[in-house]
Amino acid sequence: MGIQRVAVVGASGYGGLQTLRLLSAHAAFEITYLGGERSAGRSWSEICPFLPLADELTVDSPDPDRIAAAADFAVLSLPNGLASQLVPPLLEKGVRVVDLSADYRYRSLEQWAAVYVHEARTHQRTDADLCREAVYGLPEWHGAEIAEARLVAAPGCFPTTSLLPLLPFLKQGLIETEGLIVDAKTGTSGGGRAAKEHLLLAEASESISPYGVVGHRHTSEIEQLASSVAGCPIQIQFTPHLVPMVRGLLSTVYARLRDPGLTAEDCTTVLEAVYRHHPCVRVLPVGTYPATKWAKHTNQALLSVQVDGRTGRLVLMSAVDNLMKGQAGQGVQCLNLMAGLMVSEGLPLAPFYP
Amino acid sequence: MGIQRVAVVGASGYGGLQTLRLLSAHAAFEITYLGGERSAGRSWSEICPFLPLADELTVDSPDPDRIAAAADFAVLSLPNGLASQLVPPLLEKGVRVVDLSADYRYRSLEQWAAVYVHEARTHQRTDADLCREAVYGLPEWHGAEIAEARLVAAPGCFPTTSLLPLLPFLKQGLIETEGLIVDAKTGTSGGGRAAKEHLLLAEASESISPYGVVGHRHTSEIEQLASSVAGCPIQIQFTPHLVPMVRGLLSTVYARLRDPGLTAEDCTTVLEAVYRHHPCVRVLPVGTYPATKWAKHTNQALLSVQVDGRTGRLVLMSAVDNLMKGQAGQGVQCLNLMAGLMVSEGLPLAPFYP
Amino acid sequence: MGIQRVAVVGASGYGGLQTLRLLSAHAAFEITYLGGERSAGRSWSEICPFLPLADELTVDSPDPDRIAAAADFAVLSLPNGLASQLVPPLLEKGVRVVDLSADYRYRSLEQWAAVYVHEARTHQRTDADLCREAVYGLPEWHGAEIAEARLVAAPGCFPTTSLLPLLPFLKQGLIETEGLIVDAKTGTSGGGRAAKEHLLLAEASESISPYGVVGHRHTSEIEQLASSVAGCPIQIQFTPHLVPMVRGLLSTVYARLRDPGLTAEDCTTVLEAVYRHHPCVRVLPVGTYPATKWAKHTNQALLSVQVDGRTGRLVLMSAVDNLMKGQAGQGVQCLNLMAGLMVSEGLPLAPFYP
Amino acid sequence: MGIQRVAVVGASGYGGLQTLRLLSAHAAFEITYLGGERSAGRSWSEICPFLPLADELTVDSPDPDRIAAAADFAVLSLPNGLASQLVPPLLEKGVRVVDLSADYRYRSLEQWAAVYVHEARTHQRTDADLCREAVYGLPEWHGAEIAEARLVAAPGCFPTTSLLPLLPFLKQGLIETEGLIVDAKTGTSGGGRAAKEHLLLAEASESISPYGVVGHRHTSEIEQLASSVAGCPIQIQFTPHLVPMVRGLLSTVYARLRDPGLTAEDCTTVLEAVYRHHPCVRVLPVGTYPATKWAKHTNQALLSVQVDGRTGRLVLMSAVDNLMKGQAGQGVQCLNLMAGLMVSEGLPLAPFYP
Repeated sequence: MGIQRVAVVGASGYGGLQTLRLLSAHAAFEITYLGGERSAGRSWSEICPFLPLADELTVDSPDPDRIAAAADFAVLSLPNGLASQLVPPLLEKGVRVVDLSADYRYRSLEQWAAVYVHEARTHQRTDADLCREAVYGLPEWHGAEIAEARLVAAPGCFPTTSLLPLLPFLKQGLIETEGLIVDAKTGTSGGGRAAKEHLLLAEASESISPYGVVGHRHTSEIEQLASSVAGCPIQIQFTPHLVPMVRGLLSTVYARLRDPGLTAEDCTTVLEAVYRHHPCVRVLPVGTYPATKWAKHTNQALLSVQVDGRTGRLVLMSAVDNLMKGQAGQGVQCLNLMAGLMVSEGLPLAPFYP
Repeated sequence: MGIQRVAVVGASGYGGLQTLRLLSAHAAFEITYLGGERSAGRSWSEICPFLPLADELTVDSPDPDRIAAAADFAVLSLPNGLASQLVPPLLEKGVRVVDLSADYRYRSLEQWAAVYVHEARTHQRTDADLCREAVYGLPEWHGAEIAEARLVAAPGCFPTTSLLPLLPFLKQGLIETEGLIVDAKTGTSGGGRAAKEHLLLAEASESISPYGVVGHRHTSEIEQLASSVAGCPIQIQFTPHLVPMVRGLLSTVYARLRDPGLTAEDCTTVLEAVYRHHPCVRVLPVGTYPATKWAKHTNQALLSVQVDGRTGRLVLMSAVDNLMKGQAGQGVQCLNLMAGLMVSEGLPLAPFYP
Repeated sequence: MGIQRVAVVGASGYGGLQTLRLLSAHAAFEITYLGGERSAGRSWSEICPFLPLADELTVDSPDPDRIAAAADFAVLSLPNGLASQLVPPLLEKGVRVVDLSADYRYRSLEQWAAVYVHEARTHQRTDADLCREAVYGLPEWHGAEIAEARLVAAPGCFPTTSLLPLLPFLKQGLIETEGLIVDAKTGTSGGGRAAKEHLLLAEASESISPYGVVGHRHTSEIEQLASSVAGCPIQIQFTPHLVPMVRGLLSTVYARLRDPGLTAEDCTTVLEAVYRHHPCVRVLPVGTYPATKWAKHTNQALLSVQVDGRTGRLVLMSAVDNLMKGQAGQGVQCLNLMAGLMVSEGLPLAPFYP
Repeated sequence: MGIQRVAVVGASGYGGLQTLRLLSAHAAFEITYLGGERSAGRSWSEICPFLPLADELTVDSPDPDRIAAAADFAVLSLPNGLASQLVPPLLEKGVRVVDLSADYRYRSLEQWAAVYVHEARTHQRTDADLCREAVYGLPEWHGAEIAEARLVAAPGCFPTTSLLPLLPFLKQGLIETEGLIVDAKTGTSGGGRAAKEHLLLAEASESISPYGVVGHRHTSEIEQLASSVAGCPIQIQFTPHLVPMVRGLLSTVYARLRDPGLTAEDCTTVLEAVYRHHPCVRVLPVGTYPATKWAKHTNQALLSVQVDGRTGRLVLMSAVDNLMKGQAGQGVQCLNLMAGLMVSEGLPLAPFYP
């Protein structure tokens, strides 16, 4: 199989930049198209002197025909709502798509519109069928479907870190489905590259703060997959916090064990069994808790479990680099599967510590 | 009433430094003695060129007689176990003490020894009576007792941020006493000034990580006061996290409402009613969540409440500067009460933002 | 003398916020007017829940009549060019002004227009007389004039840190006037509170970079005062760098000694003699070099000197908090002089370390 | 040519960790020995759960015989002085060595002993011949010698960033050899992984400070090579500063042009001509100044030039990742040459931005 041609749309945002960095070092893919609105018409080396690409490309105002002429695959890293305007023509022209936005993460267009109210008002959508067709791009759980898919909706950092440790316990019925709490902590790059006052270094550094308390949009996305795997409706109490660091996401998940006799070792074995053959998930030994720095610049999720025998509670910890396994790395992982490659090909699994 | 003389023991650690900074700008107190082991014999201006004191003092290897000769009050900011060696002679000689360590935070010496196993092995203690006599120095809850006390055990940042928002709801029976979760996030200065690898900037920055998961020592301290206020045994699931910032501590507390009809406004009113006359606690309006930066360099705890009608759950948020309201500021607040002053005298309540 | 009423215009930027923080704790001043364009019509507590003021004020779209009715003094913290529109009517109505912008820092309107080309195109100015009248607000060098002035142009962090250590040596003819180099390092709050991509935490943290290399605007401002004190034209090689921290500015200044026999002790004595009676400048002992953290949240400049006997070169180091002695604190220092108070009244001189 | 076996001694420090990370992803090298004193006898996965190696190795108390049995090459990342105890036996047994310490960076043992006074007192050395034989490991200037060498002394971040931009101008006689100034800024990982108070996050963050002003040890090392290339004795004024970031080093170098008519474009051409065929150095276009973040996690030095026509001065800027091109990456670059590989093989040249 030859080298696959990939278009990256939304190239100069953090998701786009990280995708380009990964693909530029990937032996099986070639970057053949750069799309973006803000920087349309400018050459890449002018926009990003710090990330030279093998071929000098000019950023194009995204056009389905030109993308289809240039590429076999497209990775879309656009604000929510925009991907839904590009995806239908791309699929029609035979381009297989990995979308990093939320546009195709819900099985139902109605639910998407209910959660992304503002975006739904701005962007007319009639692609309910594509919402149903799209595969949720969590490779450890949907690998086979991703491999065959035309359209993959890669989940972001919050759902990925919440679901990876939770799903095995939900699937095996080891925890109560009621009372689940996800306390999540994210670096500021999760807020994107557009300039916002609260993400300035002067504002965000030396501070931690909760936001979107109760009703954050990712709650419903986490609940959708958790419910599907558990086989019953699941409600999550999800609270994100902004942490003064560039990259990294840690979720601390609290659940109650059905069998209070289970130990941390037992629960670690549960995770190990599920993820044994998944190179992008690593289960840490009991008593070793993940620092997000350990996952930085890698496409690996680090999981750890602790059990409180006193309270009968399970504490799950899950760390990723939010721009890698939490975004662009996950996208490349999906691309690998779609192209018939090894799932972790071209993806770094070891950090540049410190 | 004249100016009160204060000894600060453990002067060059963070608790000591912060106490000195506050007392040096305090009109009613005078620093008359500096104690410390590591820097004994050296002049203060040599040790700390960046924090000049009005009078040039030499650091003394702490001696109860010399402290009693020099001071009416002593603030002890020492590693756990050491205060218990100084406190009995100081009290005997008439020095009133604010201890910033854990040595007198438990009503029972046995419990202290069970939690601080290593320290109990190193330091012989026979002062069970002083453990019973000592007042837990949370001024908003024990103001009257602190004012009369010979010995105050000021609580640190984790118990303070956990208890301030929780106690009103426990006292009024508004939440279930089972299933309480405290997910806490602390800056690195909480680990003290002694050089430790994991607190190096190169290690701790750009990373967040849990530690002491299940069984952290502060769990039992929080439970002691929570149980006493609730009137029944309380168990807490407490998980601390290390955040890449110097100062600041945020606790996110999860509880279940007994009456699911209560709104965030109702719960905010509960807190406002309790803390109305307490200048060192501020309750934020519904929907405004505290950033630790807002509390930095102030002696104020910022509280906020949100309610999830869907899950019937209460989310309490509580932010302090861990070296101020979470340590040295709390100590000075206790000193103020002991000296018959206004509780917030000499204590900054507004931040130097950003 | 009673309490003086002060208007703060540009209240929600960093200069304004810091001015408000200082004045709110100042016994001799009362904040009676808040001006600002972006937040006009909104109450202060809504804009800044983290910095409550004694009186609830509403931000006003700045109006000279209303300012004059409300205040004796005005502190203007506005983008360059805007102050020049407000200052003439304010002075006319008897309001004495401290301007934190560059509008009145040059003795000549033409020079200002040559340096601030863009601003000069946007704002018509005919106030060359005010440029000549305005006093350059470096209190250690122009204290007497500031006390009498109607209009003070307070210098910012780069000129302040460059000039304070240099001027004594230039004045006494101890260094060659050719070949002066200022290598300056600033925190990101110096770039203001308006959201800009390069000041995002994700961009600016974990990085240091030079900017405005050769020809930066502050070069001419530094040269103006240096030349005036030296009595001959001085050229400076000035290179600013952006440092990943919120506050703080360090200038490292390189000069050549005329008399190669002078020692670091001699040169330290020169600085001490000049600044002995100036509480907002502190000269460190030989071999102690200033960390910006030592000056953080204080209105003090920390100076240090080293001499390289081998090369005959003088290395001057100068650290301030860029929002304090480098901006708002300097403004309040000028206000103190104008109001006949002690120069450091209400200004913190000790840091909240760490 | 088969896979080369490499021993890494000093494995758990930052230089060792970074070397392991690079070699573990390098197709031509295999890690076959880990040496270290502090962690001798422990398995690697226990010491570093975050950096798994292909083969589980146990850290060995470094022994020349065992190293020689296991490896063709050794990379030594040890405190100054220690390498000189290991190198003679290693060379004798046929192991080729890249030393990351200062032990063999001087051509003269006497000069080393004069600069590293303390180390010379602790470690007896009689290997003056090896000092003369050792090749200074700056691959862009000594590539041919490195390829043949038994012993390479790889320079660190300060000399590398100072010399790379300076040497071409010195060699071609384009700048005055007098009055050279290097103002350098380093991240805290340059201070190593051993816990030191001033490198704690709580101390070092939110601060910049000069240190080692006048007489810093790297001055003489920079001067040695600069003098050799210039063909006359060169004196440098070198001032390092500690910057609140993990990685990154920026040197700002000031020199005076001999021909004041040279432009920034001319000078950029000079650098481009010298480094055209060196993939680990990149010359930026005029007006683009390097941020250390652009070099982070890469083995590339980014150079930029600006000229001040007014003062006749050249400003050279040079950014590297201090643990990569400034330390471990440089070591692997040397290894590549010694093993007959392409100079940049296995070395990342693009950053993971942001």
